[in-house]
Amino acid sequence: MKATAVANTNIALIKYWGKRDETLFLPMNSSLSITLDRFFTLTTVEFNESFNKDIFFLNNIPASEKEENKVFNFLNKVRQFAGTSLYARIYSENRVPTAAGFASSASGFAALAAASTRALDLQLSEKELSTIARQGSGSACRSIYGGFVEWQMGMQIDGSDSFAKQILSEEAWDISVLSVLLATEQKKVSSTEGMKRTVETSPFYPGWLSTVEKDLIEVKEAIRYRDFERLGIVVESNSMKMHATMLGANPPILYWQSGTIDVIHHIHKLRLSGTYAYFTIDAGPNVKVLCLPKDEKKVYESLLSLADVQEVIICHPGSGIKYLE
Amino acid sequence: MKATAVANTNIALIKYWGKRDETLFLPMNSSLSITLDRFFTLTTVEFNESFNKDIFFLNNIPASEKEENKVFNFLNKVRQFAGTSLYARIYSENRVPTAAGFASSASGFAALAAASTRALDLQLSEKELSTIARQGSGSACRSIYGGFVEWQMGMQIDGSDSFAKQILSEEAWDISVLSVLLATEQKKVSSTEGMKRTVETSPFYPGWLSTVEKDLIEVKEAIRYRDFERLGIVVESNSMKMHATMLGANPPILYWQSGTIDVIHHIHKLRLSGTYAYFTIDAGPNVKVLCLPKDEKKVYESLLSLADVQEVIICHPGSGIKYLE
Repeated sequence: MKATAVANTNIALIKYWGKRDETLFLPMNSSLSITLDRFFTLTTVEFNESFNKDIFFLNNIPASEKEENKVFNFLNKVRQFAGTSLYARIYSENRVPTAAGFASSASGFAALAAASTRALDLQLSEKELSTIARQGSGSACRSIYGGFVEWQMGMQIDGSDSFAKQILSEEAWDISVLSVLLATEQKKVSSTEGMKRTVETSPFYPGWLSTVEKDLIEVKEAIRYRDFERLGIVVESNSMKMHATMLGANPPILYWQSGTIDVIHHIHKLRLSGTYAYFTIDAGPNVKVLCLPKDEKKVYESLLSLADVQEVIICHPGSGIKYLE
Repeated sequence: MKATAVANTNIALIKYWGKRDETLFLPMNSSLSITLDRFFTLTTVEFNESFNKDIFFLNNIPASEKEENKVFNFLNKVRQFAGTSLYARIYSENRVPTAAGFASSASGFAALAAASTRALDLQLSEKELSTIARQGSGSACRSIYGGFVEWQMGMQIDGSDSFAKQILSEEAWDISVLSVLLATEQKKVSSTEGMKRTVETSPFYPGWLSTVEKDLIEVKEAIRYRDFERLGIVVESNSMKMHATMLGANPPILYWQSGTIDVIHHIHKLRLSGTYAYFTIDAGPNVKVLCLPKDEKKVYESLLSLADVQEVIICHPGSGIKYLE
């Protein structure tokens, strides 16, 4: 009754922004991501009748109460699903540079969902696993799969049709994702709070919802035809729109730092000089830059020349869940 | 048949963003501004039967063809209104730091409207003058008046009810407006083009229109009760919303530079430390900061300490049109 799983993190090309159900992590819109090869969470879960409480170690130290609560709440959902009341020991190793703006919750809950259900020998399909992972953290449902992954929002109120599926495998199209590390400042507004405030107060949220489905179709077409320029244009504009919805919230939310804007203008200049690079920004100040592998060295070096850039980490499309025996 | 007028520039607290008629300069929404005391245009217009063409000198040199076209087109409207076909000589002096993000078109067309109609001895009311100035540049209709000024969008298709009026005189409430000069780079997208693209392509534009009237009411209440904090909060959020509508345009428009973001975060920190300062940003990278006169020195010095800030100019509410004999 013990299993170990590794899940990679993912970066959204079409953003998940807004929940229609806070408890079930049901989104207001469908989204699409690339699972990345460099950042992952490795989690071991063991259930045992002799355990008299849940234990959660994160990066070799006992997790904070806040982290414990999230993880044990999720574990309760898994136990309910499996019809068991056994306690568990969870050991998790995050290889995600959270400072670089990568949320560890996607890979974290994907790995936890995989390891805990495997430890209970549940024999789930990827679709079932994705549906369960979603209930720990929305974007975790995408990290079950490798490559290009779509999270279909679904329509059911119980969330049974809200899960991810692979659009294209990680081997089928190689693109470079450069993670640009700017600030180590903790962000002031969490994504959860940012989403909530945006949905509840921003006059721009209906405009977001009315165009995101079109953006999704456009990105899927671009992936289908391996049309990088077409992909980049819509990815960049979708990210801008997500941040715009927050500027309309009350009070406004601004995740950008000065370095964020420098990278944005830098990418625009790169394009004017003929290098096709595009950016996307999640709910934080750091920027991810997409380019073709042939341009990756040039883009990498040019980003490092910017004053506020501390580090640039190059990723490529990575695999879905793996189990270690 | 010669007159000289001086018009101050103004800074919008509730932004004018989007035209419903490009030729008549009719806005999609009402707006509200403070006329400022430090930046102005001084214009002399002379009509004479002996002139055989229009002449326009700007800052003591012949104006560019682009500038000439705008001014002569406006002059044609004035001539049509007055029923004359006389040519004119126009000498204009701009004391507006255009690099600081102040458009000279507001004070420019206000002064030109005043001087040209006075030279033709038209004896206009301020309301008529405002309506005419609007047809040179929308925001010019607000610079006819001093202090706090509202431009009521109007409903008529001929624009006859689209003009400004004074809400509160410049003596009635003193607040400080610090103009923060960051970049001298020419902006890449003109306000006219920015407005047009936003109205035509941004999914957020309906959200802008649906809230701007509420913002306007809130600012007028704040002015009525001299409630600076209430004023600042809505001014800042209105400006953020205007920029958000542009991020949603296709392609997105981003007027901000890295220094813009630094000033935004700096102002937020000032507030956290108990100094009530608020920002507003027009269609460019530079920021204007509002504070109470008692805090103006402190805010001024703290802004100058920022790396990207080149200059800070302090203004106060100024007067409307003045004529020089």
